[in-house]
Amino acid sequence: MKASQQVELFDTTLRDGAQTAGIAFSVEDKMRIANRLAEFGMDWIEGGWPGASPKDDLFFAQMKNRNWPNSRLVAFGSTARPGHAASKDRGLNNLVESGADAACIFGKSWDIHATKALGITLEQNLELVSESVAYLKQRLDYVMFDAEHFFDGYRASPDYAIKVLKAAADGGADALVLCDTNGGSVPSYLFDVVREVVARFPDKIIGIHAHNDSELAVSNTISAVQAGARHVQGTVNGIGERCGNANLISVIPILKLKLGIDCDVSDVELQQLSSLSRFVNEMANRLPWQHQPFVGQNAFAHKGGIHVSAIRKQSSLYEHIDPALVGNEQRVMVSDQAGRSNILSKLQLLEPEAGLAADDPVVAEAVTRIKELEAAGYAFEGADASFQLLLRRAMGRFRRHFELVRFRVYDEKRGHHDMPEAEATVQVRVGGKLVHSAALGNGPVNAMDKALRAALVDVYPGLSAMQLSDFKVRVLSTKQATEAMVRVLIESSDGHRKWSTVGVSTDVLEAAYRALNDAIEYKLVMDQVPPPDEQDRQSSS
Amino acid sequence: MKASQQVELFDTTLRDGAQTAGIAFSVEDKMRIANRLAEFGMDWIEGGWPGASPKDDLFFAQMKNRNWPNSRLVAFGSTARPGHAASKDRGLNNLVESGADAACIFGKSWDIHATKALGITLEQNLELVSESVAYLKQRLDYVMFDAEHFFDGYRASPDYAIKVLKAAADGGADALVLCDTNGGSVPSYLFDVVREVVARFPDKIIGIHAHNDSELAVSNTISAVQAGARHVQGTVNGIGERCGNANLISVIPILKLKLGIDCDVSDVELQQLSSLSRFVNEMANRLPWQHQPFVGQNAFAHKGGIHVSAIRKQSSLYEHIDPALVGNEQRVMVSDQAGRSNILSKLQLLEPEAGLAADDPVVAEAVTRIKELEAAGYAFEGADASFQLLLRRAMGRFRRHFELVRFRVYDEKRGHHDMPEAEATVQVRVGGKLVHSAALGNGPVNAMDKALRAALVDVYPGLSAMQLSDFKVRVLSTKQATEAMVRVLIESSDGHRKWSTVGVSTDVLEAAYRALNDAIEYKLVMDQVPPPDEQDRQSSS
Repeated sequence: MKASQQVELFDTTLRDGAQTAGIAFSVEDKMRIANRLAEFGMDWIEGGWPGASPKDDLFFAQMKNRNWPNSRLVAFGSTARPGHAASKDRGLNNLVESGADAACIFGKSWDIHATKALGITLEQNLELVSESVAYLKQRLDYVMFDAEHFFDGYRASPDYAIKVLKAAADGGADALVLCDTNGGSVPSYLFDVVREVVARFPDKIIGIHAHNDSELAVSNTISAVQAGARHVQGTVNGIGERCGNANLISVIPILKLKLGIDCDVSDVELQQLSSLSRFVNEMANRLPWQHQPFVGQNAFAHKGGIHVSAIRKQSSLYEHIDPALVGNEQRVMVSDQAGRSNILSKLQLLEPEAGLAADDPVVAEAVTRIKELEAAGYAFEGADASFQLLLRRAMGRFRRHFELVRFRVYDEKRGHHDMPEAEATVQVRVGGKLVHSAALGNGPVNAMDKALRAALVDVYPGLSAMQLSDFKVRVLSTKQATEAMVRVLIESSDGHRKWSTVGVSTDVLEAAYRALNDAIEYKLVMDQVPPPDEQDRQSSS
Repeated sequence: MKASQQVELFDTTLRDGAQTAGIAFSVEDKMRIANRLAEFGMDWIEGGWPGASPKDDLFFAQMKNRNWPNSRLVAFGSTARPGHAASKDRGLNNLVESGADAACIFGKSWDIHATKALGITLEQNLELVSESVAYLKQRLDYVMFDAEHFFDGYRASPDYAIKVLKAAADGGADALVLCDTNGGSVPSYLFDVVREVVARFPDKIIGIHAHNDSELAVSNTISAVQAGARHVQGTVNGIGERCGNANLISVIPILKLKLGIDCDVSDVELQQLSSLSRFVNEMANRLPWQHQPFVGQNAFAHKGGIHVSAIRKQSSLYEHIDPALVGNEQRVMVSDQAGRSNILSKLQLLEPEAGLAADDPVVAEAVTRIKELEAAGYAFEGADASFQLLLRRAMGRFRRHFELVRFRVYDEKRGHHDMPEAEATVQVRVGGKLVHSAALGNGPVNAMDKALRAALVDVYPGLSAMQLSDFKVRVLSTKQATEAMVRVLIESSDGHRKWSTVGVSTDVLEAAYRALNDAIEYKLVMDQVPPPDEQDRQSSS
């Protein structure tokens, strides 16, 4: 039995999170996520709705041989269909047979939903709740009741909303979960309601399930805990239908680090938070939310020179927590406000054993080069990989893996409605050899990207795993726009890492080429592929 | 003087928002955003930090001839440099001379920041705050004091934090703004502190400035208002350093629709919320946050079949507010109602004498065409000229001034350090004649722009006054970035007017061509230049 101050974590990434527009988990994805959540130590992992789709059925079937020391699998469903005996209800029996450790079923707690959406009387709805829970409770160890629209229902009719909870409690529900289904409640109201429910059901675990339609889901979840809730539902990164669910990636560190409320996540597990967040983004095939609280790339990124010198004196001056606690890290961004201290800390990170000091000539050289490039329109704050290559050059620690001899791009469009045709040819010198390649693309940058990688992939087969994941173009000066300098930012990935590079030119294609060039060089450096002549030497030895 | 229940809105999109990693507003962008914020009716618009960068200086210089009925421009800065007389301080004098209506300066309210970061005594810091505010107050009507790190400072030493506010109040500050600079406070703590401050300074407007590092910025802002704060700082879409600032796009509807607190935003202005959000995304060249509360594309999107049939019965069953209140729309039911009435009013504006009604086939045709184009990736939020051309086409009131026969673009670069060479050839049909032109450019879009205008300028001499003033590129889908759809937004001017057009394609050059084509057509329509055959007829009569 849990102590009264402890909160249990219920993850619904695989059920409510899977409702997110644009997300489609495969069965394999779901299994990988479930196991990762168990590894992290979530108390409850809701896997899906057995019977609702073949995918969820297959998932539950596959999960029967799970081996989780600290987590329990939950099957989601609803109260029985009105007019059916609970014991004969196909939906409820699907839950029983799913192999899950527990069931979580939702029922109506807003009077108008019972009468309008289900079309039954208020009394019939109470029986439905009570009988459905009671049947499940005969067959399963643990049953949770999700009171759908509880806060709207309580506003409309507090008596009826409480009666619904009482029906679930009478049926034997172990936990009563209050759902802010439409996401419209504000924390002050929600706090009062939860406190009232906690007082009325002192023997039950009271839970909270919040949606983010008012950008208040995390706060509502925290308020509910402060009002006595001991069970918290949410998803990794706050994914979910419409505006998403409560984001457990924020809720967990707030509970643990700010409120000192135990949620059975150890310090070591907490350090996995950033990595868990990124893992789910990868599975969901989603761009990371760079500004994400606690775990985002920019969550501890510092731009201004004043901040940076203060941070070197004492981190807590400008950071609300130590980023290492959640597995994140401080990031000093280079911008036109950047001072020497920014660059020194970057160099020290890159080459810790070099023992660089602020007055080292390498630092001065890097600062000069950065200032030149920034004056030419470069911006490195979104292009860490290009910046690292620059530092390596300043330290004399970089040699090209290939050299551009020429690129040519052709693009033609005939008539207003015709599809254009883009072709690129690239000549590069790699390890003394001249390679010439050509490619068609559905645009000139795409053609150039393809041609360049075609020229290099024989020598550097690792490049075949590389993909361009994002591409941004920005005009730098607004006078005579098409004559202006253009900055291209490219994000690449190889399935393990993501990195960003930048190129600047008056010519958008040249700028794209420069960013592509850096993207490839960075990949080769990270993979520790030696430059060609060293490679020749090694292969001949 | 405002009534006690009214909250004033302070927008810092152009100052704190401009600190966002990856965002770089041009002066032109800043002016457009400022005017749009004024049109929306923000009480205070913080434009930047005069003296901190040439960009902000130019912005304030340009804004001197603003004409805002309901908004006031604010210049941001800091207390004087320690050891300087406030009246001689360059930074403070920059604020005085900026032409802004008010100044907002920050000062240290966390003891350790005064001693560690500034390196002065606690007493010296109080004098600094008081003298800096007092000097500004001699020269400006309205001065706000941002108490940096107030909540951390209050935790460390409540007495000292209050003394700092008192120093600002003694200096004559009109508003005392409590900043959760590191974004680490939870609403319950923040509420208590704000209530205490409000009680201590009953004659001052107390403000809140929250950051989102704990995903609580909106909630903290709301809590502060519930505790008596009457001034709310934030940014459009919550942009800002690290994890961003309080998102005014969420704060405003919560205040107005959920708490019934007046913030001087009329119902009609509130309906502009979605459009304001999208406009700032366009200016920031940012992908829209599709799940954004209230205004996101998915905020009222319904996926589940149960939801949908319930929604058909009664919308409020699954929606926390009516999306039309914030200018958004439900995404499942294809009712077009919001879209239709929007388009109708645009058409009526364009052609007042036509007396169009909602059921006119022209409206239906325009709606269909817009939906098709939006599905293909077009967005008309930032491209009013393209939108007007589209409406003219729907009304049968548009005839091309020229027709593209073919464009060809060549771009070549030799060696890593060589300048590329771009050439474009364009063939167009104008008034029965085929014109063929060619131009070199310092990039392919520039070459194409020059060649196209060279082909047309003999027939349409007015085009020589036209310039491209901005050019933005956005990748629409992130899968396989360089194969993705690309949207090009072009802003043009002719010395009198500015207008924006859009083009979409997988090929960045084709997308640019489409936007250029619209830019030229729009100029000719506005100048009431008849299409070629009418011209022929007129010249032969």
